Amino acid sequence: MTTMEILRQAKANAPLLAAADTDLKNKALNAMADCLLASSDAILAANELDLNAATHISTVMLDRLRLTAARIEAMAEGIRQVAALPDPVGRVRQQVVRENGLIIDRVGVPMGVVAIIYESRPNVTSDAAALAIKSGNACVLRGGKEAFRSANAIVEAMQQGLQSVGLPKDLCQLVQDTTRASAMELMTAVGYVDLLIPRGGAGLIRACTENARVPCIQTGTGICHIYVDQDADQEMALNIIENAKTSRPSVCNAAEVCLVHKDIAEEFLPKLHQRLSDRVQFRLDPTAAAIIPGTPAGEADFDTEFLDYILAVGIVDDVQAAARHIAAHSTGHSEAIVTANDAAAAYFTRTVDSAAVYVNCSTRFTDGGEFGLGCEMGISTQKLHARGPMGLEELCCYKYVIHGTGQTR
Amino acid sequence: MTTMEILRQAKANAPLLAAADTDLKNKALNAMADCLLASSDAILAANELDLNAATHISTVMLDRLRLTAARIEAMAEGIRQVAALPDPVGRVRQQVVRENGLIIDRVGVPMGVVAIIYESRPNVTSDAAALAIKSGNACVLRGGKEAFRSANAIVEAMQQGLQSVGLPKDLCQLVQDTTRASAMELMTAVGYVDLLIPRGGAGLIRACTENARVPCIQTGTGICHIYVDQDADQEMALNIIENAKTSRPSVCNAAEVCLVHKDIAEEFLPKLHQRLSDRVQFRLDPTAAAIIPGTPAGEADFDTEFLDYILAVGIVDDVQAAARHIAAHSTGHSEAIVTANDAAAAYFTRTVDSAAVYVNCSTRFTDGGEFGLGCEMGISTQKLHARGPMGLEELCCYKYVIHGTGQTR
Repeated sequence: MTTMEILRQAKANAPLLAAADTDLKNKALNAMADCLLASSDAILAANELDLNAATHISTVMLDRLRLTAARIEAMAEGIRQVAALPDPVGRVRQQVVRENGLIIDRVGVPMGVVAIIYESRPNVTSDAAALAIKSGNACVLRGGKEAFRSANAIVEAMQQGLQSVGLPKDLCQLVQDTTRASAMELMTAVGYVDLLIPRGGAGLIRACTENARVPCIQTGTGICHIYVDQDADQEMALNIIENAKTSRPSVCNAAEVCLVHKDIAEEFLPKLHQRLSDRVQFRLDPTAAAIIPGTPAGEADFDTEFLDYILAVGIVDDVQAAARHIAAHSTGHSEAIVTANDAAAAYFTRTVDSAAVYVNCSTRFTDGGEFGLGCEMGISTQKLHARGPMGLEELCCYKYVIHGTGQTR
Repeated sequence: MTTMEILRQAKANAPLLAAADTDLKNKALNAMADCLLASSDAILAANELDLNAATHISTVMLDRLRLTAARIEAMAEGIRQVAALPDPVGRVRQQVVRENGLIIDRVGVPMGVVAIIYESRPNVTSDAAALAIKSGNACVLRGGKEAFRSANAIVEAMQQGLQSVGLPKDLCQLVQDTTRASAMELMTAVGYVDLLIPRGGAGLIRACTENARVPCIQTGTGICHIYVDQDADQEMALNIIENAKTSRPSVCNAAEVCLVHKDIAEEFLPKLHQRLSDRVQFRLDPTAAAIIPGTPAGEADFDTEFLDYILAVGIVDDVQAAARHIAAHSTGHSEAIVTANDAAAAYFTRTVDSAAVYVNCSTRFTDGGEFGLGCEMGISTQKLHARGPMGLEELCCYKYVIHGTGQTR
């Protein structure tokens, strides 16, 4: 099927899912998990073909692409976990009873058709589908070409699950074209895509900003900062920076920049060097470079999402200067201050305009699971509609339902 | 100043307003109201020039454009009412305390710079500015050319109010260019406009859908339906249709289409004709045309926002057919069912995908004031971020503020 045919099917069938009750959606999700397990062999065979064809990608990417029986079990378990979450559809978010007797309910409703553009991790296919189905949205998935056969096998299994409970398979479809043309089609399918979620690198996000005519939520890019204040518990600061930089450098909530108050730089930087220099390369501004060894930072180093064992380090005059630096260089994802000074913490949290602003803890917590949302579709770094981790509620909008007894105005 | 210079000033000064406390913002709003009254003579003189130049527009438009001392007083009172509303900024919308001790607050924050494109009513200038300032947003106003001198005088007065409490006047600016070029500049000012709100006709909305690269909320166009079910209280239905069609036909929440269940058409349509035919022209589908006199409906009549004393009337088989008709022809604004049948009402409210769905009351209630929001920036007919009347909360987004004691992941 062409991408446009897929979108037409999704749009035509979306109302069925919007009207489905919680029980039916949960049955569908559990059946999707069952079918995923039952199709393990076919999925692994398809994945093997993908792996054999992927001779041009890095070891890290190959590992992301690889499926195993255990990984498929984890995917199925992830779907079941989404089934267990509360249903955002039909929830009355707010009720007002007016003097004229009108009862005005603000009710959670699905967006309609959600399209997701993502890259090579096959598990995103099932995660995204599960979140979309539970939130009452038909989903159109457009994965990377390296994982196409795997994703196709996964979607076929999930479609069997949908059909086994009497829902149309078109509620969950994979775009068959993995060239740029299909991404552009999704970005411009006004009237067919109610929400587009690009999950990927800066290039994909920029392409969506420039080309999207449909509602779109930018996700992901994280140049995250940690500011160590003069009043910081320095041991705590070391633990937080080590965790934020090294526990998983390839993810968007990993720290890329450390800013240190000038009055403690002479004391703190040698400790930072001692703690991290066996694993982390430093890119140092001139003041920091005068204190510890490391590569002098180029201008781009404070505007780069390294996604690697590299940390840019800069010295600032005070919390105000730290906030100004962040305003100039951040991608609006996650930033942290380490301080025992309440006034500095309050200034930082009030002034820094990012999705998640932390006091005395690691930026690595910006994650749907860690925030108690259960699971997430991505981390929004924009301000319209959703900010930070996008869970089921953020895949919905609302409508007003008003009950009267003949009122006129 | 050029539009780009205005935007740069707005962006540079927006953080000052974002950090302002409720008291300062309220003082600023009350000072803006005072200065508006103190500048009445200058504003009326500017308005006189606008009126004299507006030789080409209709009497209705001239009346919209005209200011009087009383209208300026009402504008000032409108600003004071916004000052009295609760502050959405800094409000903790939700708090989660996690097992690891992290305290996660979802806190209301301003968008940053809000740009509003509107037409000839000068009072929109003060309404929009008041809502923007109270919600902590710098505002860039781009009014219609007919009202330019009036809007300029109003903005100058409001700027005096801002300065009198120590805030920069650049927090509220009027774009000096009223050609299409300035609208396009606002639509494409990525990084300078955090939210664009076009208020106007279908042409402006379409231009924004096609051209906007900045976050944009579509407002306004309303092809509103009233469905009279077989189980309707027919006297109630007549009252509701009369109110929704004739109380103010020029507004977006006025009804344009009436759908009637086939089993009551023979009985109900003559009553409808008797109630409205002295003021309202009917555009009738073939079945309706066989029952009452009126103009046969052309295909376009069920897809037109008449904004006039015209009502399209169609006959449908049941509530399902009514919902299908609405899905095919509605602009997603407001729709109503009149019925005493709970199952039909439930089907209608669940299935109809519009911003406001009414049972047994008039579509005319879709309005910020009527919903208890105090005041509104417009009626969103899209699903991303805000739907229906946009009050202060809808001019804000949120961020997560997380307090810890050294937690790492």
